[in-house]
Amino acid sequence: MKKLINAPDDVLADALAGVAAAHPSLTVHLDERFITRAGGPTPGKVGLVSGGGSGHEPLHGGYVGYGMLDAACPGEVFTSPVPDQIHAATTAVDAGAGVLHIVKNYTGDVLNFQMAAELADDDGVRVESVVVNDDVAVEDSTWTAGRRGTGATVFVEKIAGAAAERGADLATVAALAREVNERSRSFGVALTPCTLPAAGKPGFELADDEMELGVGIHGEPGRSRAKLAPAKEIATTALEAIHADMPLSGDVLVMVNGMGGTPLIELYVVYKAVAEWLSGHGVTIARNLVGNYITSLEMAGCSITVCRLTPELTELWDAPVETPGLRWGR
Amino acid sequence: MKKLINAPDDVLADALAGVAAAHPSLTVHLDERFITRAGGPTPGKVGLVSGGGSGHEPLHGGYVGYGMLDAACPGEVFTSPVPDQIHAATTAVDAGAGVLHIVKNYTGDVLNFQMAAELADDDGVRVESVVVNDDVAVEDSTWTAGRRGTGATVFVEKIAGAAAERGADLATVAALAREVNERSRSFGVALTPCTLPAAGKPGFELADDEMELGVGIHGEPGRSRAKLAPAKEIATTALEAIHADMPLSGDVLVMVNGMGGTPLIELYVVYKAVAEWLSGHGVTIARNLVGNYITSLEMAGCSITVCRLTPELTELWDAPVETPGLRWGR
Repeated sequence: MKKLINAPDDVLADALAGVAAAHPSLTVHLDERFITRAGGPTPGKVGLVSGGGSGHEPLHGGYVGYGMLDAACPGEVFTSPVPDQIHAATTAVDAGAGVLHIVKNYTGDVLNFQMAAELADDDGVRVESVVVNDDVAVEDSTWTAGRRGTGATVFVEKIAGAAAERGADLATVAALAREVNERSRSFGVALTPCTLPAAGKPGFELADDEMELGVGIHGEPGRSRAKLAPAKEIATTALEAIHADMPLSGDVLVMVNGMGGTPLIELYVVYKAVAEWLSGHGVTIARNLVGNYITSLEMAGCSITVCRLTPELTELWDAPVETPGLRWGR
Repeated sequence: MKKLINAPDDVLADALAGVAAAHPSLTVHLDERFITRAGGPTPGKVGLVSGGGSGHEPLHGGYVGYGMLDAACPGEVFTSPVPDQIHAATTAVDAGAGVLHIVKNYTGDVLNFQMAAELADDDGVRVESVVVNDDVAVEDSTWTAGRRGTGATVFVEKIAGAAAERGADLATVAALAREVNERSRSFGVALTPCTLPAAGKPGFELADDEMELGVGIHGEPGRSRAKLAPAKEIATTALEAIHADMPLSGDVLVMVNGMGGTPLIELYVVYKAVAEWLSGHGVTIARNLVGNYITSLEMAGCSITVCRLTPELTELWDAPVETPGLRWGR
């Protein structure tokens, strides 16, 4: 295992200390393990809390800030955050208007966020939850009943965050978050596995000429093992899977996301293929992201996420955001 | 070789087409192979042109835009751009106030930018050049007479770009660029090699327990091969090498840069160690970057760049910038 770490057990604590040192706009609660905006909650604003296993950075801690999340709860690498941690973050950001939990659909995450919501309810904090389940690759995979939550989480956090910043109430923010999830689909491809610091060896194996089609963000198996193909074919496979599940038309928001070990130059090669496929199917890319937004440690590969936009969603996407991971317009 | 590409010979053309499709703020001149701002040159503003081999994205194309570069000239992967290409970019962005060439110190780059400057001079375009040579690891390495140009290039492009945007003349912008270079030092460490698409196999070899201290951005040899060490020791080695060459004090700008295959969580682990070392030596990190800013394809590892700030440089660093790779404040 070759990693820039001190010791496997210290990775999360060290990284959180690094985040604290790097970003004065954030407050890192090192003992309780959650990250909030340095300014504290905005009075009267719905609070947005997300979280999940670490190893997917910049998700979620990198999306705390104006126009996006109020708090993020990082678990150990590829491990759900615990209820107490989520509960503490939830009460910390409640400003009287309630809190939205944005939860990726993994069994442990769903269960622990639910327990935290019950604890918060006991404190008189209103909590709504949205479960993100955009990955079309498989149903009921490792760690998940139903579909996995992947790239659409970035879209949900951005768009719901913009609505909350403008003063929308909890029901409205939650409905928007669900709408973004329902209008979004993802498909991922891995060229290499990744290694958990605590495990010390790769989580699965891929032959030198193989890729995993439909891989999950923890390296969970996808639809099939196949011979490595040109980028254009990979993009076609991903987009056909998405299109078969949710027919694409009109304006879309597209993310070509690197999984952590793929050079940006390759992501642009994939983006070209994605843009050509969509254009050939009468679909217009109105907005896009190309880069590392939801990663899987050092896994090589990419995921493609498409959201069918409405004018309202586009406008909220364009609203100012100021976080370590996404920043524009302010 | 596992890469998200179509064919090794098509990587640059495909990636440039992807950049063109993804970023309406840029104009990609696909035939002549350079990237400019979509709006064309700003009348009366000094033009900033950089370039070099591809494979270091977002450098340089990702830094074209308001407050930074006017044009970038990408060569083939790890290969210098050619004089005609640089010449075309130079004349395209000249708005009457002359053009600054920002050149990383590699023999081919320096030679080809020099020839392009002579061609531009024949056209009546005034050109000044700054050669970036911030890497303290080695002198006269592979591809370079003197020191290599690495991470400080990002600082030079940002700060000189801010000055040009405010209307500084060519001599002033060039002097600032040289000042930033003179006040900056870098040191890189590789945990894995990277593979050129055209070569199909890694450019060098590293044993499972080894790292290369002082590696260059093309995988050129550094100071020594060593056993893989904890992040804290690696940061200490890098900072001691920098401090020995240029004693650090006062306010600094620090970049912990991922080489392409290193997860962001590991870069934050390194950043913590960097912050602690600097704090322990009485040095204040006034500004920082943590992420992938000048990469080496999928190489795992990181580089650390430190710039000794002045109030003027800090203020120019903070000035608005709006490019695909760096964006804030506007």
